Amino acid sequence: MSDTAKTQPVYIDGEWTHDYVASTFCAQDPSCGEATEGSFPVSTWDAIDRALDAAQRAFRISRNLEGDQIAAFLEDYAKRIEADREVLVELAHRETALPKSPRLADVELPRTVNQLRLAAQSAREDSWRMPIIDRKANIRSCYTSLGPVAVFGPNNFPFAFNGISGGDFAAAIVAGNPVIAKANSSHPATSQRFARLAAEACEATSMPKGFVQLIYRTSHSDGERLVADPRLAAVGYTGARHAGLQLKGVADRVGKPFYAELSSVNPVVILPGALQERGDKLVEEYVVSGLMGAGQFCTNPGLLLLVKGAQTESFIEGVVARYQAAPAGTLLSSGVETSLVKSLGILSKAGAAMLTGGTKLPGGRCAVANTVMRISGEQFLAAPEVFQTEAFGNAVLIAVCDSVEQITRVIDALEGNLTGTIYSDTQGADDTVYASVADALQQRVGRVLNDKMPTGVAVSAAMNHGGPYPATSHPGFTAVGIPASVLRFAKLTCYDAVRDSRLPRVLRDKNPNGSTFRCIDGAWTKE
Amino acid sequence: MSDTAKTQPVYIDGEWTHDYVASTFCAQDPSCGEATEGSFPVSTWDAIDRALDAAQRAFRISRNLEGDQIAAFLEDYAKRIEADREVLVELAHRETALPKSPRLADVELPRTVNQLRLAAQSAREDSWRMPIIDRKANIRSCYTSLGPVAVFGPNNFPFAFNGISGGDFAAAIVAGNPVIAKANSSHPATSQRFARLAAEACEATSMPKGFVQLIYRTSHSDGERLVADPRLAAVGYTGARHAGLQLKGVADRVGKPFYAELSSVNPVVILPGALQERGDKLVEEYVVSGLMGAGQFCTNPGLLLLVKGAQTESFIEGVVARYQAAPAGTLLSSGVETSLVKSLGILSKAGAAMLTGGTKLPGGRCAVANTVMRISGEQFLAAPEVFQTEAFGNAVLIAVCDSVEQITRVIDALEGNLTGTIYSDTQGADDTVYASVADALQQRVGRVLNDKMPTGVAVSAAMNHGGPYPATSHPGFTAVGIPASVLRFAKLTCYDAVRDSRLPRVLRDKNPNGSTFRCIDGAWTKE
Repeated sequence: MSDTAKTQPVYIDGEWTHDYVASTFCAQDPSCGEATEGSFPVSTWDAIDRALDAAQRAFRISRNLEGDQIAAFLEDYAKRIEADREVLVELAHRETALPKSPRLADVELPRTVNQLRLAAQSAREDSWRMPIIDRKANIRSCYTSLGPVAVFGPNNFPFAFNGISGGDFAAAIVAGNPVIAKANSSHPATSQRFARLAAEACEATSMPKGFVQLIYRTSHSDGERLVADPRLAAVGYTGARHAGLQLKGVADRVGKPFYAELSSVNPVVILPGALQERGDKLVEEYVVSGLMGAGQFCTNPGLLLLVKGAQTESFIEGVVARYQAAPAGTLLSSGVETSLVKSLGILSKAGAAMLTGGTKLPGGRCAVANTVMRISGEQFLAAPEVFQTEAFGNAVLIAVCDSVEQITRVIDALEGNLTGTIYSDTQGADDTVYASVADALQQRVGRVLNDKMPTGVAVSAAMNHGGPYPATSHPGFTAVGIPASVLRFAKLTCYDAVRDSRLPRVLRDKNPNGSTFRCIDGAWTKE
Repeated sequence: MSDTAKTQPVYIDGEWTHDYVASTFCAQDPSCGEATEGSFPVSTWDAIDRALDAAQRAFRISRNLEGDQIAAFLEDYAKRIEADREVLVELAHRETALPKSPRLADVELPRTVNQLRLAAQSAREDSWRMPIIDRKANIRSCYTSLGPVAVFGPNNFPFAFNGISGGDFAAAIVAGNPVIAKANSSHPATSQRFARLAAEACEATSMPKGFVQLIYRTSHSDGERLVADPRLAAVGYTGARHAGLQLKGVADRVGKPFYAELSSVNPVVILPGALQERGDKLVEEYVVSGLMGAGQFCTNPGLLLLVKGAQTESFIEGVVARYQAAPAGTLLSSGVETSLVKSLGILSKAGAAMLTGGTKLPGGRCAVANTVMRISGEQFLAAPEVFQTEAFGNAVLIAVCDSVEQITRVIDALEGNLTGTIYSDTQGADDTVYASVADALQQRVGRVLNDKMPTGVAVSAAMNHGGPYPATSHPGFTAVGIPASVLRFAKLTCYDAVRDSRLPRVLRDKNPNGSTFRCIDGAWTKE
């Protein structure tokens, strides 16, 4: 066996190939910092070039497939994932240190399978097409396939947001688009396992070669070349802000949709009445959410906004005590650790008081002490940019403000975020100030919550996992929730005086499918 | 009266002001090339700065207005436009040379008023909000106001796409967004007249100061500064490609939605059976559409794709004869004339044969001889970029291809377009080739037409006046058609466990409005 053969293969054009290896890399076991088994390729441009050609060929077929066939693929894939659960959980645990249970096996894997099945349902019902029919003018429109999509998955959800099994993948596939998945290089073996299952599902349901492909890593310049290439129609990206903005710049220059989820500090306002009413309970609720997954959630509540006073002091004391008592979770990689320590340094240097934590834990494990920092509202307003530095991990910044009015000004100074939360009392004491805080907050976030932490992102048609820039790259789209998330990877197509037999089935006079809602002459109906 | 006072005022923060004049310009009467009466300001940055502040203040109010009040403003404004019809038509005719009747008085003005009324209806019914309710999870979402919008209107529709009365204006207003209109500098007096009516309507319906504002022109750098400014939430732009892409680049860098409509050659394929069946009729149909408004429509059919043969030769002869016989229409400005002559030069230099026209007509009137150019499919495929040069005006490029298969390859080489049209025979002779041509074409265009020229853009909920880049800047949105066009200027906002009384009315348990469709637990209903 040659050295090249020992490197793990990429999946391109329906084939597992050991070619196209520019160099290699290994993943890391974050629980000890050692490299995991297996060497993965940094692919050459030739690999991407071939993948793009294959995706183009696949698209000529996939864009005309009936929803039933897309659904069959998604459902077959979901079933294979369930059957392979033990292997997937084991691989992901080794590469991410996320707990096998409940997190990986009992929460994230079922969520992933559920997403694929909801996607299948949407494909079958054509609900993502949003058919609109104007009978008098004989003008009809619906969403149609867009073209090959590259999906860059993040490090923190090896299943549910994986480029080859997660939300963006499912959304792109529903609309009949081939996907070129770029594995997150912190969990390549997990991603490869998914690709094997997806390949089997493609085979079993007669999907075209090149419909699903996997690479692990490329050079930065090849990544940019991929994004710029005219054979690629759109990009889904979840990950670090700097790298995401680089790629977004490339996509923007060629007019290509680039859906990015970049960063969010997810402000949580606890109004005085709520603290008065149930301060101890809120400490508990906050700590569970803040430390969940070692704080490595895009919706982690990283910025707490409180009004100064005795209750606030005792709330902060409670949080600090719990943060000190709780074991520090293992971070996803040494990269996450380095980046967290760096962010804490920036916040501290800008004047945040370190109430607890702030340093890396000794030993090989990737871990930072649970961290609580404190500033005043005035400090925030004097340097809003630096105090919005995302500290991705088990750290929180508490801004103690002079008044609710000052909280509102802090909110006005925020960048776009995924979520914004307001806790208020149940007896009406906070009602007079709620409106002004909520009015400011909803301009800055994609999801407003009441009395509930933002870390749960339900897979619901009504969910918005999105938000104004730079939380995401567009204020009108969600990455979670079918069918809305599909619209990112679809094209609006109108048919003007097109003969009935030539229309997409869903726009024909006769509804092909009793389960499809269509808007006919202004009324939504299944008729 | 000082010199400054003689310059026409801008409308900022509810006030007509003669301040902020950096320099001045005059519009042109294209029928003779002379300057029209009235001197208009190129505004300083201070004007824009004040307009942005005023828009921000207005937005704090307008985002919370009920749909009824927005609707009242739009309907009041529509009524004032109708009452002022004679003055508006006279002004627009002088500044654009477009015929008073039927074009301005009987087509464009009623269309404009109709758009404003449909917008009012959407505001009243909240149909643009697309409410989605998941009762079990108690998660609800809808579109909400986005923020102040700048609208840059084009030269070719002084009413229906005017930045202060047209489609983008109406769409932005429906969603409760203040508009800063940038008049097209070829018709400033028309735009000013609209602003006067809009100001009166604001006054009559108690809209906040700064909800509607008008400037005429700025320096390029101040235009870019406006687009980049964080007080501005989004931009609607219809106009020249180069200037649009400059501004889009600025918006992209700050993550701001920029909806641009840039250029389109609108390919028309006439299949052999159709030519055989009704060649003479098609000559007539083509010529009417191609020369309508001197070809100055964004959906002008500028690229004809035909298969070589005797019928094609006789079709081309027919078109040339009609183009020679028809009077050359007056162009919108000397700028359009210069640009058209330049484009024809580029196409000619690249090898297009000039069958008729190609030169400016003598005299002061802005006009170019009706122009027909011819190339082969092979020529197109050898230089697809140059042969897609938009020749905005009364000119057509006919590509005579070897086969339908070559037409399909030409289509595959096209950039994004607003429309794509296929003519086929009525007896089924073209049916075997239709599918492959249509399959290729619908990837490249926003609207597919059958046996109908693309120059009519019906104001219908099912219309897509949009298309893949560079026709527009996003493949999923339309600039015509309410409520879809509104979504460009809206933000998706989700409410997770938010108490019922705090929700937007349209998301509360009780439907506030019998006429609003809401998607509740997967079913669209008015209940």
